[in-house]
Amino acid sequence: MTRVGWIGTGVMGASMCGHLLSAGHELTIHTRTRERAAGLIARGARWAQTPAEAATQAEVTFTIVGYPADVREVILGEHGVLVGAQPGSVIVDMTTSEPALAQEIFHTAAERGVASIDAPVSGGDVGARNASLAIMVGGEPATVERITPLFELMGKTIVHQGPAGAGQHAKMVNQTLIATGMIGVCEALLYAHRAGLNPELVLSVVAGGAAGSWSLSNYGPRMLRDDFAPGFMVEHFIKDMEIALGEARRMNLALPGLALAHELYLALRAQGGGRDGTHSLIRALARLSGEEWQPGGPAPDQPSTSS
Amino acid sequence: MTRVGWIGTGVMGASMCGHLLSAGHELTIHTRTRERAAGLIARGARWAQTPAEAATQAEVTFTIVGYPADVREVILGEHGVLVGAQPGSVIVDMTTSEPALAQEIFHTAAERGVASIDAPVSGGDVGARNASLAIMVGGEPATVERITPLFELMGKTIVHQGPAGAGQHAKMVNQTLIATGMIGVCEALLYAHRAGLNPELVLSVVAGGAAGSWSLSNYGPRMLRDDFAPGFMVEHFIKDMEIALGEARRMNLALPGLALAHELYLALRAQGGGRDGTHSLIRALARLSGEEWQPGGPAPDQPSTSS
Repeated sequence: MTRVGWIGTGVMGASMCGHLLSAGHELTIHTRTRERAAGLIARGARWAQTPAEAATQAEVTFTIVGYPADVREVILGEHGVLVGAQPGSVIVDMTTSEPALAQEIFHTAAERGVASIDAPVSGGDVGARNASLAIMVGGEPATVERITPLFELMGKTIVHQGPAGAGQHAKMVNQTLIATGMIGVCEALLYAHRAGLNPELVLSVVAGGAAGSWSLSNYGPRMLRDDFAPGFMVEHFIKDMEIALGEARRMNLALPGLALAHELYLALRAQGGGRDGTHSLIRALARLSGEEWQPGGPAPDQPSTSS
Repeated sequence: MTRVGWIGTGVMGASMCGHLLSAGHELTIHTRTRERAAGLIARGARWAQTPAEAATQAEVTFTIVGYPADVREVILGEHGVLVGAQPGSVIVDMTTSEPALAQEIFHTAAERGVASIDAPVSGGDVGARNASLAIMVGGEPATVERITPLFELMGKTIVHQGPAGAGQHAKMVNQTLIATGMIGVCEALLYAHRAGLNPELVLSVVAGGAAGSWSLSNYGPRMLRDDFAPGFMVEHFIKDMEIALGEARRMNLALPGLALAHELYLALRAQGGGRDGTHSLIRALARLSGEEWQPGGPAPDQPSTSS
């Protein structure tokens, strides 16, 4: 049994924290909107008024919040975890956040005898619920080893990527792949629609070959059903891309594909799609060519098929 | 036993034609460079001086050549298949070519009582050798049904996509996915390298999740081994992208991701990489940021990791 502090009980955090509770760990939690913690409190978690208070008795304090500014506030702020954390305890930030901030937290915490690791996840709300997340970890080996039994309650693939910040960098690699690949999935389905093909027939032949991807197999069918409920929300994805592009800029690395994806997602947000799923990018790409995406409808401006 | 004409015995064509020979069909072949047909002739195929001659006795004549201009020449040209083809016979073009040309061939052939279908493939040289190709077919159902037993000797996934040209359109969907997705794979690995991550460790966590793709799993490791031998050559891929972009333009469809991929591949060809594998795109993207891709080497211009 470990005494655990937990900050942030959104869609992801509530599921992940719930797995620790189920395994018998002692949880003290804080989140911005107390009502969102009600289910966990009913299951035995204690409430703390501040992140600092949640950390006071904890051997390990997890944070999973929204933006890097939130991470800074709940860990390094006036009432942050580091104010309460005891020497010898560990802070684990699971928010997708900036590698440089992870390093800053690592160094600031170390000055007070507190260890810290960064451990963003992928796998979405379903992965959080099923404890099948992939967890990308940055930090010192001894700390990572100490926390791994807790990670194993939340995820299936737990890989130590390197020193502080390396977990966040690995997550940026993941998001770069998803963002750029999504452009291809959307453009391919738009092409199929315009060309008058049956998109299900096309998917049946391309999805299993060299053109195949998780996004195509999982988001393609949803795009074709006009189902844009968020697995992962556009506005959060934009945050991730901005972190990746900022880091790339700092590393003198031009990423034209990711930059294009970012611009297209900004357009989608400007069109009112900020809280839809990331696969609704197909709507922005359709509008770019004067079309409202209607997968069931006839292809617009269908040209004569002979040249 | 079917009397088959076969035009084009390059890397793909020779393997595919070989499967028909092995199954006991009677082959008459023609190809631009006669020596490349020697192996098939040794196995019992007859040589024809022209495509027209190859088609004269054939119930079905297959073509798989390089560019749309080659397709036009070997089918519609002065000594082309259509000059020799008997009424009631079928022409099957398996080249990746223009949908509009497939439709033109369909109509021109029909005027002479000859049926035709377009049937480009994916799966590369390995798929051709193992008879595991995906075959995307456009044409009239009765014709497609008649040819399917022959396709089954060459491929595993054979899907009738619609009328003449639909096979080519489906192939363009396939190539759009691969081209745009490849940008993401390259940028992700470049990011990982610059950030000082161990790319194998990153792949171990991202390849199995939402960021996963065939390209990442198959080309990622080759990029990391600095192995750029062609599965599929850059200059042929550029041809395919130009067909897709031309069709999209004709359909009033803007495809910014595919357009970016095309530009980056043009740069790669300009740098001398036209005959390397398509995954050598990572070299062009590395050069864009002033780096020669050296997966084993240290990350260049490695910045200080704190901000």
